Amino acid sequence: MSSIISRLLKNWEMLLLPILAIFIFQLLPDVFASGGGEVINHGGDAATTFLWLAIVLIAAKLSSFVEKFGQPAVLGELIVGVILGNLVLLGLNFFEPIKTNSHIIFLAELGVVILLFQIGLESQIEEMKKVGMRALLVAIVGVVVPFASGTYLVGPWLFPGLESTTYIFLGATLAATSVGITARVFRDFKKLQTKEARIVLGAAVIDDVLGLMILAVVSAMATAGNVELADIGIIVVKAFAFLTGAILLGQLLAEKLGKIFAKINAGVGMKFTLVICFGLLLAYFAQQIGLAPIVGAFAAGLMLDSVHFRYFKDPKIVAELREHMKGYEQTEANQQLLKKIEKHGRRHIEDLIEPIGHFLVPVFFVTTGMSVNLESLFDAKILILAFGITMVAVIGKMVSGLAAGKGVNRMIVGMGMVPRGEVGLIFASIGRGLGVISEELFSALVVVIILTTLIPPPILAMFLKRQK
Amino acid sequence: MSSIISRLLKNWEMLLLPILAIFIFQLLPDVFASGGGEVINHGGDAATTFLWLAIVLIAAKLSSFVEKFGQPAVLGELIVGVILGNLVLLGLNFFEPIKTNSHIIFLAELGVVILLFQIGLESQIEEMKKVGMRALLVAIVGVVVPFASGTYLVGPWLFPGLESTTYIFLGATLAATSVGITARVFRDFKKLQTKEARIVLGAAVIDDVLGLMILAVVSAMATAGNVELADIGIIVVKAFAFLTGAILLGQLLAEKLGKIFAKINAGVGMKFTLVICFGLLLAYFAQQIGLAPIVGAFAAGLMLDSVHFRYFKDPKIVAELREHMKGYEQTEANQQLLKKIEKHGRRHIEDLIEPIGHFLVPVFFVTTGMSVNLESLFDAKILILAFGITMVAVIGKMVSGLAAGKGVNRMIVGMGMVPRGEVGLIFASIGRGLGVISEELFSALVVVIILTTLIPPPILAMFLKRQK
Repeated sequence: MSSIISRLLKNWEMLLLPILAIFIFQLLPDVFASGGGEVINHGGDAATTFLWLAIVLIAAKLSSFVEKFGQPAVLGELIVGVILGNLVLLGLNFFEPIKTNSHIIFLAELGVVILLFQIGLESQIEEMKKVGMRALLVAIVGVVVPFASGTYLVGPWLFPGLESTTYIFLGATLAATSVGITARVFRDFKKLQTKEARIVLGAAVIDDVLGLMILAVVSAMATAGNVELADIGIIVVKAFAFLTGAILLGQLLAEKLGKIFAKINAGVGMKFTLVICFGLLLAYFAQQIGLAPIVGAFAAGLMLDSVHFRYFKDPKIVAELREHMKGYEQTEANQQLLKKIEKHGRRHIEDLIEPIGHFLVPVFFVTTGMSVNLESLFDAKILILAFGITMVAVIGKMVSGLAAGKGVNRMIVGMGMVPRGEVGLIFASIGRGLGVISEELFSALVVVIILTTLIPPPILAMFLKRQK
Repeated sequence: MSSIISRLLKNWEMLLLPILAIFIFQLLPDVFASGGGEVINHGGDAATTFLWLAIVLIAAKLSSFVEKFGQPAVLGELIVGVILGNLVLLGLNFFEPIKTNSHIIFLAELGVVILLFQIGLESQIEEMKKVGMRALLVAIVGVVVPFASGTYLVGPWLFPGLESTTYIFLGATLAATSVGITARVFRDFKKLQTKEARIVLGAAVIDDVLGLMILAVVSAMATAGNVELADIGIIVVKAFAFLTGAILLGQLLAEKLGKIFAKINAGVGMKFTLVICFGLLLAYFAQQIGLAPIVGAFAAGLMLDSVHFRYFKDPKIVAELREHMKGYEQTEANQQLLKKIEKHGRRHIEDLIEPIGHFLVPVFFVTTGMSVNLESLFDAKILILAFGITMVAVIGKMVSGLAAGKGVNRMIVGMGMVPRGEVGLIFASIGRGLGVISEELFSALVVVIILTTLIPPPILAMFLKRQK
């Protein structure tokens, strides 16, 4: 008897188990019933977003099993997103609020900016310049061919009798390139240092500038009916100045800034902040002149990625190394080794950004998947139109791979240019807003964007593995 | 002549400098004129938030000079926030949009959740239990004394002739404790492992539960005029079950989960995601039962912080160590050392969360500072009332320090309980919403919250340094 009491006293916490059971039964219905708190609503809105964020991140990680089948992680994230986003077709609308949660949408945009910043950091500016001419050719062909075939072939053929501005908008949508997905595939396979990756990245950046010009022209045509060359000139000069200015400044100042940066004695937090703020500011400036924020973030990453910025001494790692060495025999050799290790105790800037990437990048790809509405695949007519446009969309970009020149796998470059993603969607949306793109054509274009987003990752994976 | 041409050819990029100058002149007015893009608005809203985010982070880091004067970094962040938020009084309204930017507000709430999660990770559950009784006493005294003196002394004395519910709301506002600021001060000084820190953290968590009860009672009194005991009972049982359940589950499952966790062979990303999602989910569940999300995040951190979760093998660090050892003489001793180092190649979970903390925690404190409206200090009458209430608010919490028992610095515990922060503001706002707190009293309470937020950090700093 007394032993039972003494065991109870020792394990008094066990008495709480029944309360816990009641608690779980109490809590669960609340969770699924509403997003708001009951009594105090401190951070109600935010707390619901925490739930969505956790769900998105866990879903993204669950999807990483696709890597076992040799597929890039990004494909898993897109697919799990498509599933989450279309469970509503089976009557389960629990996840629907994620699609319209403004904070999640913001975190996704921040995520893709962080991704392109990381990719910029991992790319070398000198290596990018080496493929500059090829990237320019790929970009031009990759814009001209899909634009021309959209405007003069697919448009009049699949949608006869419409205004020419409609065909031009269709062409413009097909000319867009969204670099996020391709860049992620290259990164997932650790192929960012290949010539193909550099050509695609460079071409995508140039493509954003060309797309900007096309959009300015076609918007002016659709609204005013005519185009003022001066306006286009200003846009082009600004975009050109931004990109070359960023690269130029990077090369002029990187060494000096790197030295200052290395000397900053304020711990890892300060370095992290300076680096990430630089990426955020360039993303903002890019958006200010009409470029995509991701182009600015990529340029920022390129600028910082001089040799001078790649490493810095991290006292924490040095301390950890010292800790490791403690207790081992203190021979002369070990002492010397310790000194050498300490001298080299360094850390990559990329390592600092990495956890932010883990946190935010999957949000972009899962929500991109969620925005895919499978219902638009149920309409046979739209589907046929969409397949027709997709054929042209894929072939048009594959042709651009031919412009990549010798010594590279042109299939990889071409396929890397295929994803239209959010850029294509923006073009189509503006066209719909201006009344030149019909609902039917818009639905078809959404399917085209879905297909050009989901098809390239597995095919690129195949090409990249074959290259090994 | 030819040398000039060859130099020009070599340094052709220099020719871009004039374009760059034009570009900067072109861009700057845009930046200060509007937040939206000109042509394509991809991510317009988000891009503006990138700018604000960068400004907030840079401001936070600039403010870290206060550390040179022995002040905690959090004080610098609060002060720089107060400055940024009140530049409008000098006619500069450039930073005003930060205050109302919903994404920044969200990131701040996420930031304080991450902070309390980190603090939970750094606290030991066993150590917390040791001070459990003391923390409970401090919490009770720290709620009863300010509540009673607000309701029966300050209220009737400073604002004579009002309804008793008004006095009760005033008392409730003074009873609140906001743990974020104190926790940050302890953390800035690496004092989280002290008894004082553990008592304050524990008391603040219990205080949140007590505050929940008080708010339920006073809200019911103000609206219905009577209180149903059953409702309060449910709230208390839920809150109690949540906290004990979390701690209990943590102790029961930590070892097993830790072993599974250690075995997961999917890289750092997976571990990071699991850990952070656990924190986010508990923050959400806490909010669901009416507790502050930060209480849930703290509980999550406590649960994960068993010995089993603190370390895990990181292949990246092992690889880095291997890299370090390359090229050194391959003696038998060095070989063995390498093996030993590899065996211990481990990483703290805290290290994974750290960069997210660097990114988001300052957003909370800078925006908390920005929400301080110095204009409310300009009204002499309100100021006098506020000073009166503040005296009681500070003394009431200092008294609670006496309940901390022997062997601890009671001044540190008492001062640590002083900040009212956002919790007090929520109480006052609800009272204003119910019509029982007048505009005048509300303004005075805002000043009280400002003072109780800004006063403790430097005083705590003084006490903590004297303790050394």
